[in-house]
Amino acid sequence: MIKTPYLLFLGDAPDPLAAKVAQGIKDWRPDFAIGQLRMEGCRADMGLPDMTLAEAREAGAQTLVIGVANRGGVISAAWKKVLVAALEEGFDLASGLHNLLRDEPDLKAVAEACGRSLHDVRIPSVKYPIANGVRRSGKRCLAVGTDCSVGKMYTALCMERDMIARGMKASFRATGQTGILITGDGVPLDAVIADFMAGSVEWLTPDNDPDHWDLIEGQGSLFHVSYSGVTLALIHGGQPDALILSHEPTRAHMRGLPDYKLPSLETLRDTALALARVANPACQVVGVSVNTAALSDEEARACCAGIEARIGLPTVDPFRHGAGRLVDALAEV
Amino acid sequence: MIKTPYLLFLGDAPDPLAAKVAQGIKDWRPDFAIGQLRMEGCRADMGLPDMTLAEAREAGAQTLVIGVANRGGVISAAWKKVLVAALEEGFDLASGLHNLLRDEPDLKAVAEACGRSLHDVRIPSVKYPIANGVRRSGKRCLAVGTDCSVGKMYTALCMERDMIARGMKASFRATGQTGILITGDGVPLDAVIADFMAGSVEWLTPDNDPDHWDLIEGQGSLFHVSYSGVTLALIHGGQPDALILSHEPTRAHMRGLPDYKLPSLETLRDTALALARVANPACQVVGVSVNTAALSDEEARACCAGIEARIGLPTVDPFRHGAGRLVDALAEV
Repeated sequence: MIKTPYLLFLGDAPDPLAAKVAQGIKDWRPDFAIGQLRMEGCRADMGLPDMTLAEAREAGAQTLVIGVANRGGVISAAWKKVLVAALEEGFDLASGLHNLLRDEPDLKAVAEACGRSLHDVRIPSVKYPIANGVRRSGKRCLAVGTDCSVGKMYTALCMERDMIARGMKASFRATGQTGILITGDGVPLDAVIADFMAGSVEWLTPDNDPDHWDLIEGQGSLFHVSYSGVTLALIHGGQPDALILSHEPTRAHMRGLPDYKLPSLETLRDTALALARVANPACQVVGVSVNTAALSDEEARACCAGIEARIGLPTVDPFRHGAGRLVDALAEV
Repeated sequence: MIKTPYLLFLGDAPDPLAAKVAQGIKDWRPDFAIGQLRMEGCRADMGLPDMTLAEAREAGAQTLVIGVANRGGVISAAWKKVLVAALEEGFDLASGLHNLLRDEPDLKAVAEACGRSLHDVRIPSVKYPIANGVRRSGKRCLAVGTDCSVGKMYTALCMERDMIARGMKASFRATGQTGILITGDGVPLDAVIADFMAGSVEWLTPDNDPDHWDLIEGQGSLFHVSYSGVTLALIHGGQPDALILSHEPTRAHMRGLPDYKLPSLETLRDTALALARVANPACQVVGVSVNTAALSDEEARACCAGIEARIGLPTVDPFRHGAGRLVDALAEV
């Protein structure tokens, strides 16, 4: 568990896109983001107060989160200076970078000397069990995609926000690096050892109140041959009561696989539902979320309406149109 | 790659079952098994010549394979003495034990001093790629089970033996610890990091002659919620041209999951085939292998005949009745 609130480190981000992780935290956990720390030349801005390390500590920040993707996979000397100073100032560090904080001898030494924690959220920090398949109390919703990177995480976060606003009991459950940095907790599922994948998802979504919903962050796709095993482990470990079908309508082929076409939403629906019912015979498909970022307003509405007419399920872009109709559909489950 | 031939270490096996790995090597790779080494009190016997370390080296043995499951997960002091002597005598060591050879400081030190290798086949030794889904030349057959431990490995090994005897080009491809120790090579799939599972299977079954068959060792089951993700990665990384359905007819529930019933062979057929065709649209289900170990001769024949009448595919216990009809079925693919 990463201590909150955060100071968001934007480093020398060459453009706003490089600070995607910081943007996600600011969008989805504004209470966690009390300030930003930018180095000279930084071209990203979260619109948060610019703070020095000392000011942020004073304001209560516990963890410096690296909210920016670094260039060339290396923690630069310029960054290193700030990270060391942060440890000395009393911050923990958290990062989803490929090159791990713990693999930097100086960071490791200073963290040990100062009694601070280094959180590399790419690496599991828990010894997960093998899944036992026992039914758990509470309810669970999972987005499954026609492809990878079609908006499954945003769908879950949009639904959680809407549910909290309605006074419903809901928890977003992160299964990827960005999700973990947004929430401060979760399972980096793509880095878990094969035998423990489903067990890690059981661990992530334990027994809960009968009227509580876990919104589990989806991963991969049953139809993406590189990652489908991760997706099936998520379906069987998650035991979802409700599935949302997620789709990006302009994708010409499966991400990174030029020879693979996307499945139809009907094929996704039938395949995912049959597999989900192995673990939870009561599972239902309740709606469709469409990532319409590449479409105009008019195109987006027409696209959702067309899918809704065809599939007969509430169909929205939850980020653009709101997740209300998807949340309404959960009430029927 | 583990150097062959082997001297099989049976240790102080309390009963023949404890030496299952040695039995597998002796049954399936008799050429690799030139002798056995038994300690005082050993109650297992492969019927191989008993050899000292020196005699086995003289006869050409390269690797001492731990062919026995140890008690309590600990490499005992009595074993250790033999293992150290083997390293000094010039043997590599190979083991599928949970407690790793490399975690024993004395074994590690002696191996380094003598220039010998320690093979812990539970742990991947290769940095596998992420699967790219590109179609590979050559043909591939995979057994998929209604449950775990229903005879998928034996089905593949029986088919390989039959094919080699007919002069066909065939390679068993090991994906589990026992299979790896039997063949000296393979991928310990259940220990691979989630993101690289399918890629490790692509690596295991590379391009080959158009008339060559890989017989890929199956793992888990699409219907076993603890391990289904491993199975799907195997299906999508393996790109099988032919599937065999494997079944154990006396199983009352899914292994280790008392609340889960086995799927019907029809459900397994339809589910596995649809998923396999994502990676290989030409995939076909060609036969059924039944593990009839718990049945009498008469019951076994009746069971297979009943399934064959129902499913309309050649149905045999390949270990009991021979794999010939399954191999015949491959010729049609």
